[in-house]
Amino acid sequence: MTGTDRLPSAILGASGYIGQHFARLLADHPLFEPPLLLGGERSEGQRLDELWQLVEEPPAELTREHFRRLSPAQLQRAGVRIVFGALPSGLAGAVEAECRRRGIHVFTNAADHRMDPDVPLLVPEVNAAHLRALAAGSRHRALLVTNPNCTATGLVLALAPVWTLLRPEAVHVTTFQALSGAGFPGVASLSITDNVVPYIPHEEEKVSAESNRILGTARNGRIRPTRVPFVANCARVAVRDGHLEAVTVVSRRRPSTADLRKAWTAFDPLRRVELPTAPHPPIEVRSQMDRPQPARDRWAGRPDRARGMAAVVGRVRWDPPYLRFFVLSHNAVRGGAGGSVLNAELAAALGLLSQGERGPS
Amino acid sequence: MTGTDRLPSAILGASGYIGQHFARLLADHPLFEPPLLLGGERSEGQRLDELWQLVEEPPAELTREHFRRLSPAQLQRAGVRIVFGALPSGLAGAVEAECRRRGIHVFTNAADHRMDPDVPLLVPEVNAAHLRALAAGSRHRALLVTNPNCTATGLVLALAPVWTLLRPEAVHVTTFQALSGAGFPGVASLSITDNVVPYIPHEEEKVSAESNRILGTARNGRIRPTRVPFVANCARVAVRDGHLEAVTVVSRRRPSTADLRKAWTAFDPLRRVELPTAPHPPIEVRSQMDRPQPARDRWAGRPDRARGMAAVVGRVRWDPPYLRFFVLSHNAVRGGAGGSVLNAELAAALGLLSQGERGPS
Amino acid sequence: MTGTDRLPSAILGASGYIGQHFARLLADHPLFEPPLLLGGERSEGQRLDELWQLVEEPPAELTREHFRRLSPAQLQRAGVRIVFGALPSGLAGAVEAECRRRGIHVFTNAADHRMDPDVPLLVPEVNAAHLRALAAGSRHRALLVTNPNCTATGLVLALAPVWTLLRPEAVHVTTFQALSGAGFPGVASLSITDNVVPYIPHEEEKVSAESNRILGTARNGRIRPTRVPFVANCARVAVRDGHLEAVTVVSRRRPSTADLRKAWTAFDPLRRVELPTAPHPPIEVRSQMDRPQPARDRWAGRPDRARGMAAVVGRVRWDPPYLRFFVLSHNAVRGGAGGSVLNAELAAALGLLSQGERGPS
Amino acid sequence: MTGTDRLPSAILGASGYIGQHFARLLADHPLFEPPLLLGGERSEGQRLDELWQLVEEPPAELTREHFRRLSPAQLQRAGVRIVFGALPSGLAGAVEAECRRRGIHVFTNAADHRMDPDVPLLVPEVNAAHLRALAAGSRHRALLVTNPNCTATGLVLALAPVWTLLRPEAVHVTTFQALSGAGFPGVASLSITDNVVPYIPHEEEKVSAESNRILGTARNGRIRPTRVPFVANCARVAVRDGHLEAVTVVSRRRPSTADLRKAWTAFDPLRRVELPTAPHPPIEVRSQMDRPQPARDRWAGRPDRARGMAAVVGRVRWDPPYLRFFVLSHNAVRGGAGGSVLNAELAAALGLLSQGERGPS
Repeated sequence: MTGTDRLPSAILGASGYIGQHFARLLADHPLFEPPLLLGGERSEGQRLDELWQLVEEPPAELTREHFRRLSPAQLQRAGVRIVFGALPSGLAGAVEAECRRRGIHVFTNAADHRMDPDVPLLVPEVNAAHLRALAAGSRHRALLVTNPNCTATGLVLALAPVWTLLRPEAVHVTTFQALSGAGFPGVASLSITDNVVPYIPHEEEKVSAESNRILGTARNGRIRPTRVPFVANCARVAVRDGHLEAVTVVSRRRPSTADLRKAWTAFDPLRRVELPTAPHPPIEVRSQMDRPQPARDRWAGRPDRARGMAAVVGRVRWDPPYLRFFVLSHNAVRGGAGGSVLNAELAAALGLLSQGERGPS
Repeated sequence: MTGTDRLPSAILGASGYIGQHFARLLADHPLFEPPLLLGGERSEGQRLDELWQLVEEPPAELTREHFRRLSPAQLQRAGVRIVFGALPSGLAGAVEAECRRRGIHVFTNAADHRMDPDVPLLVPEVNAAHLRALAAGSRHRALLVTNPNCTATGLVLALAPVWTLLRPEAVHVTTFQALSGAGFPGVASLSITDNVVPYIPHEEEKVSAESNRILGTARNGRIRPTRVPFVANCARVAVRDGHLEAVTVVSRRRPSTADLRKAWTAFDPLRRVELPTAPHPPIEVRSQMDRPQPARDRWAGRPDRARGMAAVVGRVRWDPPYLRFFVLSHNAVRGGAGGSVLNAELAAALGLLSQGERGPS
Repeated sequence: MTGTDRLPSAILGASGYIGQHFARLLADHPLFEPPLLLGGERSEGQRLDELWQLVEEPPAELTREHFRRLSPAQLQRAGVRIVFGALPSGLAGAVEAECRRRGIHVFTNAADHRMDPDVPLLVPEVNAAHLRALAAGSRHRALLVTNPNCTATGLVLALAPVWTLLRPEAVHVTTFQALSGAGFPGVASLSITDNVVPYIPHEEEKVSAESNRILGTARNGRIRPTRVPFVANCARVAVRDGHLEAVTVVSRRRPSTADLRKAWTAFDPLRRVELPTAPHPPIEVRSQMDRPQPARDRWAGRPDRARGMAAVVGRVRWDPPYLRFFVLSHNAVRGGAGGSVLNAELAAALGLLSQGERGPS
Repeated sequence: MTGTDRLPSAILGASGYIGQHFARLLADHPLFEPPLLLGGERSEGQRLDELWQLVEEPPAELTREHFRRLSPAQLQRAGVRIVFGALPSGLAGAVEAECRRRGIHVFTNAADHRMDPDVPLLVPEVNAAHLRALAAGSRHRALLVTNPNCTATGLVLALAPVWTLLRPEAVHVTTFQALSGAGFPGVASLSITDNVVPYIPHEEEKVSAESNRILGTARNGRIRPTRVPFVANCARVAVRDGHLEAVTVVSRRRPSTADLRKAWTAFDPLRRVELPTAPHPPIEVRSQMDRPQPARDRWAGRPDRARGMAAVVGRVRWDPPYLRFFVLSHNAVRGGAGGSVLNAELAAALGLLSQGERGPS
C-alpha cells in the first residue's frame, strides 16, 4: 500500500472528545484517506470547527467538513474500508459488528468488544502476536481490533519490558486520572475543583481484566490471559490530560537495578517496522525525582506524529520484592484515538487490511 | 485541673501555617491559657491578623496579639508551662529539647524527635499506651510528645481498628496530598496547576517508619515497632486541604465484611475520656461510592471543637487477601496542630501535665 | 408572628444548587416551618441526603426528608403559606404565578418575574421602599418578590451607600464569576480548568437592567429605574463560590475619600429591624491591598445565621472622576437563596405575610 | 545581514521564566547566534535542562549549555553584540546601561528603562516610528530597546487598529492575569487555588503610563504620550499562561461595526517586512461568543515561529459610545521574551544593529 492508494476511512462518533482526537490524527495520514466524520442527530450537518472541543487546533484539512449520519450499509456503498470507533461503549458494539459484517475494518476505542475471544485487545509494542494469532484464524471478512482502556494502556506499556524479569506476584496500581478521560461535558467543575474524586465507574475492573488479557499469550488462535492480581484504586484529579499511575509490582525475582533500567530504555519492539504514529522510544524514562508530571510529560513521543504516544516512567524505586514507579500516558491519545490509529497501522504493515477488499459477496 | 486554672501556654513558630492552626485551636481552650505567639526575626512585633494566612477567620481572642521572640529561658521565667511546636523540622529539635530541660512540656508537630526512643509518637485513639509507658519511665522533668507526619496520622487511624482482624502482611498506600501540607509559600502555583507532582521529599520513608512505630507495642518502657512493609507512593495534587490516601492491605486473615465494617464504626476508644478536641466517632465511614473527597470531608469531626479531627473512610472493597479503601484526614488539623492539641489533652487527662510544675531546680 | 406560629413553607426546585442552599437556610428558621422539599420527576421520592451536592453539610433537620411532587393546588390544600423559588428561569414563572393566585407568598431567585411592573426586585438594605410601595397597591392575594441576579446583588449593595455622594455618570463592571453560579452540573471541568470563559449568557444585560431597577425610586406605586449606563463584561473563573467584581464608577461629584469610606462603613439601614438573616454590617470593608478574595471572603457576614450574606469591598481607589473598587459576595447565598430568605424576613417584619392568610376564597 | 553572519548574543537572567522563553526562541534564530546563558550565583555552572521550569520542552540546541556569570566587560571581550534582558526590574537597569555603554545592543523585558526619554518602548506593529525616531537622534553607541509590561502589550495591540477610528475619551480595562506573569516560584498555590487575587503591585500604573507612551507620537526625536485615562483593575487568576483583558473604550466617534471589524482584520503593518517572529495577522478576531480563552488561544500566531505572538480579540460589542471586547495574549511570549525578540528583528531590518559594530573605541 502506498500513499497514493490510501484506504477510505470514517470516524464513528467523530463529534466527541476521542472522535475529535481521531480527526486530528487522521486528517493527513499517509495510510488512510481523510476520514468521513460520522455523528448523530445533534451533530448532523454541522461543521467540525463549530463543534470543536479540544484546546488543540482543529485540523486544517477537516475544519470545514460536516458531520454526516450514515449507516454501515451506506458506509459500505460509499466505499469506506476502515472505520475508527469513538462511540460511547454500549452504543458502539452493534454498529461495529455490523461494519465488520459488511467487510469494513474496525479499530475502536469502545469497550464493548474488548473481551470477545476473537477480538484482539491490542497494544502493538506489547502483544502484536495477539493480532497475528487472532487474524489468522478469523472467520470474519474484516478485522475488529480494540485498544484497551486508557489506564490499562499506560500500565501494560510500562510493565511489558520488565514483566519476565520480575514474574510479578501482584501489581498494585493507584491512578490520578485526567478530566478528559470522562470526555465532554464529563466531570462537572464543581465536582473536581479543589477536590479529588476517588471513584471512576468500572475502571478498576477494566484495568485488571484488560491488563491480564493483553499480557497473556496467544496459543492455537486463543488468548490465555495471565492471572496476576491487579489491585487497583482509581481516582479523578483536576488535570486536563494525562493519566498518572503509581505502580507497585510485587516481584518473584530479583533482577539488578541496572537490568530493570535497561529493560525499559532498550525497549522498542517496533523499531524495525515503519508505523507512522509509533513513538521511538515508546517508553521515556525520566531521571528527575519529581517526574513524570501530567503538565510536562503528557505530550511525550517522537517523532512529531507520535506526540502523546509515549509512556513516561519515573521515580523508579526498587526495594525487593517491591518495584515502585510512576507512569504517565496521554489518555486521549495513547490511551484513546492514537492507540487505535497505531493498531490500524500495525495491521496495515502486516498486510491484514487487504482482506476486506473483496467487498460484499 | 479546671477551666479556672488553665496552663500558661505558647506556640513555637506561630506565624507559619501549622502555627496559625494552633492559634485557632488554642484561642479559647478549656485546658490551656490563650497562647503566647512566638515568632522569628521577621514576624516579631507584628500582629497575628497582619500575618494571617489561613482562609479560616483568625481567632477573635488573638487577632491583635503580637508575635514575640522569647528563648526557652524567658518562657520559663514567664511561667509558661506548655509549648506547642510548629517550628520547621531541623530548627525545632534543639529548642524543644531546651524547653523540656527547663520543665516546659512540649507537644510538637515537628519531626526531629519523633524517633527518639523516649519520646512518644502519639495518636491518642491508637497508642495511648505509648504515652503512659514512656512517661512512666521518663527521666525528664517535662513531657516531650510528638504527633506523626500528616500522612501517617490518617493512615494509622484507619488501620488501627482492623489491625488485629487482618494481621497485615503488607500495607500499600498511595497519597493525594494537599497543598497546605507544604505550608506557605510552599508549592508554587505554576508547579501544580493542571498538574500532579509525584514526589514529596522524605514522605514515603516517614509514612513507613512512623506507622510501624505507632502501631507497635510498649513493653518495659520501650516501644517495639511492628515490622510490616508500608509500601508508599506519595504525590501532591491541586487541593487546598485534606490528604486523601488509597490504601490496600494485604491480609493474613479473612474476617467477614460485617466484622470489618463494625470494627470501624464501633471504634471510639476515647469515648469515656473527656478530651475537648477528640472527635466522636474518630472514624466516619461513608457509604457513598465516591467518598471521601477532600472538598466535602476535610472538616469531618464532631462536636464543633473537633471539626477536622475525624478520619473519613470510604470505598471499602474486600477481595481477600486485599482490603482496599480510601481514607481522608485534614492534614493541618488532625495531621498537624489538632493532633498535638489532642495529645496534650490526653496527657492532661492522665495527670501527666502536673509533673513539670516543680519549676526549675 | 412568633416562633411558635411559624409559616408553613416549601421550596420549589429543592434538589438544585440554589434549592439546597434554601434547605440549609430554612431548616431551623425562626419564622418559617422546616420546608417541604419539592422536586421533579427525577428527584421525587429520594431523600435530601441522597441528592446533596453542596460541600457544606446537609441540614440535620431535613437530611432524611424526601422530595415530593406537589402542584400549587396541592400546596394550597396542604396549608403551605410561603414558597421559596429555585426553579430554573423559564420553568419558574408559571408555577410562581399560580402559587400567588392561590394565596401563597412567593420569594424567588428565578428571573422570570424580575421585571414585572408590580413585582418588587428586592435587596432589603437598598430598596425596601419598593416592597412597601408595590405591596401597598397590589391587587394580588399574596406577595411575589424576586431577588436579583447574583452579580447585580453584590453590585447594588456596594453602590447604594455611595450612590448619592457620587451621582454616577456611568458604572463599569467586570466580573470574575464562580462556578456555582451555573448550578450543577453547570460548567464542564474541561471548559474551565486552567482557563477563563469570557461569556455568560444574558448576564451583562441582566446586570444593567436589574441594577437600574433596584436603584430606582418608587413613586405612586410604580418603580422608576435610574438610567445610568452599566457597562458590563462578565466572565467565568475556576472558583467554587463567590462572585468578584471590579467596579469603576464615573462620578459627577467629588466627595472626600473619608466621606466615601464612611458611607460604606456606616451603612446599615436594617440595624433597627430584627431580621434573622440580615448581616450587620451588610458591607465589610477590607483594608488589606489584596482583598476581597473569594476563598477568604465568601462567607463574610455576622451573626452566624448571616454567614455569606455580607458584601465585601476592598481596594478602594479614588482618582476623580473614577472611583475604583472590588466587591465580592457569595453568589449562591447573598446572591441566591439567602437573598430571598432575607426578602421574606423583611416582608414578615413589615406585616405583609399575613395578607395571604385568608386562604382560598 | 544573512543567516551566515548571525549576531553573537546572550541572555541576561537566562535561568528565570522569561529568560527560558528567550532561550526557547533564540536557540535556532536566523539573525542571532545561539545565545550565551547568563545567570547568577545560584545558577552558575548548572545546565539549562537542570533548571528548566517551563512545561514546553527545553530547546535541543541549548539543553546542555551551562549558565555563566559574565560582566558586561567580559561580554564585550567575548564579542557579544546583542543581549536580551530578563533580569528582574531593579537589578536590570544598571547592567543594561553598562552593556549599551560598551556598544552591546540591549533588548529587554525589564521595566527599569521603559520610561527613559531616549529609550523606545516598542511594539513593532504599533509604534515602529518610535524606534526610528529615537535611534536617529541617539548619542549612544548601541541601542537599548524595551518591550512593555505584558498587560500593556496585548492592550495596545488591540487598540492600535481602532485608535483613530474611535479617538477614545477613556479606556477601561480589567485583567485576568496568568500565574506565569509572576515568574517562578511567583504566586503560592495556596494563594490562588479556588481563588482570585485582585491586586498585582504597580500593574495598574504601568498599564496606564506605558499604554499612553506607546500610543503617543514621535516628533523631533521625542515621544509625546497620549493623555487618555487608562482606568485599570488588575487581578490574578488560576491560569498558567495568557493574560485576558476585558476592555471598554469610551469613544468620541461612531464608526460602523463593519469599519471596526475591518480595522482589526486588515491590520498587519509588518506584512511587507520580513521579521521571523512576527505573526501574520498580529490580531486574530474570533467569532465564537465565548472566546478568547487562555487555554485555547494562548498559542495563537502564525507561522510556527510566531506561535504565542498574536493577540486574540473576541466578544466585540459596540453600543456607542462604549466599545467592549476581550483581548488575550501570551504574557511570557508576546508580552515578554517574544516581544523583545521581535523588537530586535525590527531593529535588524531597519539596519540599526550595525551601529554598535565599531566596538570599543
